[in-house]
Amino acid sequence: MSTVTRDLPKLTAKGARTRARIVDAAARLIHERGVAGTTLDDVRAAAEVSGSQLYHYFADKDELVQAVIDHQADTILGNQRKADLGSIEGLGAWRDMVIAQAKSTEAKGGCPLGSLSGQLAEADPEARALIAAGFDRWSAAIGDGLRNLHASGHLASEIDPDDLAVTLLAALQGGLLLAQVQRDPRALETALDTLIALASSGSAAPRGKT
Amino acid sequence: MSTVTRDLPKLTAKGARTRARIVDAAARLIHERGVAGTTLDDVRAAAEVSGSQLYHYFADKDELVQAVIDHQADTILGNQRKADLGSIEGLGAWRDMVIAQAKSTEAKGGCPLGSLSGQLAEADPEARALIAAGFDRWSAAIGDGLRNLHASGHLASEIDPDDLAVTLLAALQGGLLLAQVQRDPRALETALDTLIALASSGSAAPRGKT
Repeated sequence: MSTVTRDLPKLTAKGARTRARIVDAAARLIHERGVAGTTLDDVRAAAEVSGSQLYHYFADKDELVQAVIDHQADTILGNQRKADLGSIEGLGAWRDMVIAQAKSTEAKGGCPLGSLSGQLAEADPEARALIAAGFDRWSAAIGDGLRNLHASGHLASEIDPDDLAVTLLAALQGGLLLAQVQRDPRALETALDTLIALASSGSAAPRGKT
Repeated sequence: MSTVTRDLPKLTAKGARTRARIVDAAARLIHERGVAGTTLDDVRAAAEVSGSQLYHYFADKDELVQAVIDHQADTILGNQRKADLGSIEGLGAWRDMVIAQAKSTEAKGGCPLGSLSGQLAEADPEARALIAAGFDRWSAAIGDGLRNLHASGHLASEIDPDDLAVTLLAALQGGLLLAQVQRDPRALETALDTLIALASSGSAAPRGKT
């Protein structure tokens, strides 16, 4: 469920663009500075809108933060669905993309969705539920791919692909968290490579470690 | 390196107790409410000290937060060193302890160290470095146990125990993050069990999945 369908009055095309510009700016600032470090005034200035425009779309900061959560989850899901985890090449390409992204930013900001958990989970129950829903969708999308990989014999047969999807998402989140504080993507790389190697060893169609 | 050795003037026994009481109270409040949701005044009241006592030990909130990071890392390391990851029984007992802890609190607050990452990594470089150092010590302690487990043939021989330590810590952090936002420890349980089963399958001394 995205915010767009959840609680928005009908917007004109121009209104939808303005709202999207506000959410984009807020998402960027929050990723760079954290939720507590981002004021509505920062967002207003970055999105180049007036205070009354901002308040027209968002009653308060909580509402804007919730729109940012949906936006980040939608962006991640869009990218995840473009990846094809149903083939060994696709899984490798996804792994390379995730690591390259962490390398290019020194893992600054961590995961755009995961890094919001520690900031919001205890302070804002609605935000917590939205982040959880985002992770559920993400895990399901990974599971869709891994089920195909399992069916084609590229995963050890005793593995449950949905369990592996949760484990891969956990390793990704934890690896990104370690990479973020260490300013070094190696932990992320180690976690993903170790898990993928373990999951594919003993498969019907093994491949060498690349 | 703990704060105690880093930047403290000599304290009397009573002074050390007062300081420890302040850090304990701050750690508890920050774990419950987050860094941004905890004021120095909250800490002062919870620790039952005066404002001037608080400022005698900590120049500002950043300094107190840094002491909390060291405190949490020391506590975790103490517990980790009590666990014996060098035996299958010890690894199982550690897994059970981690899950039981998450269950008893519904994973509220997440990992006392990991949950600080998302809050502080981008806002406070000194805090970020302290959290990273805590994770390095944690990962090394896990690795110490897993090296013994590997040497006794309980892990698949091709596994590098230090890589597995990083992966296990990542799965734990990511699993706790998912459990925290989902208010359900299942993701943590799935991530740890899947990784441990994969790492021990194909070992010289296999055991049934419990």
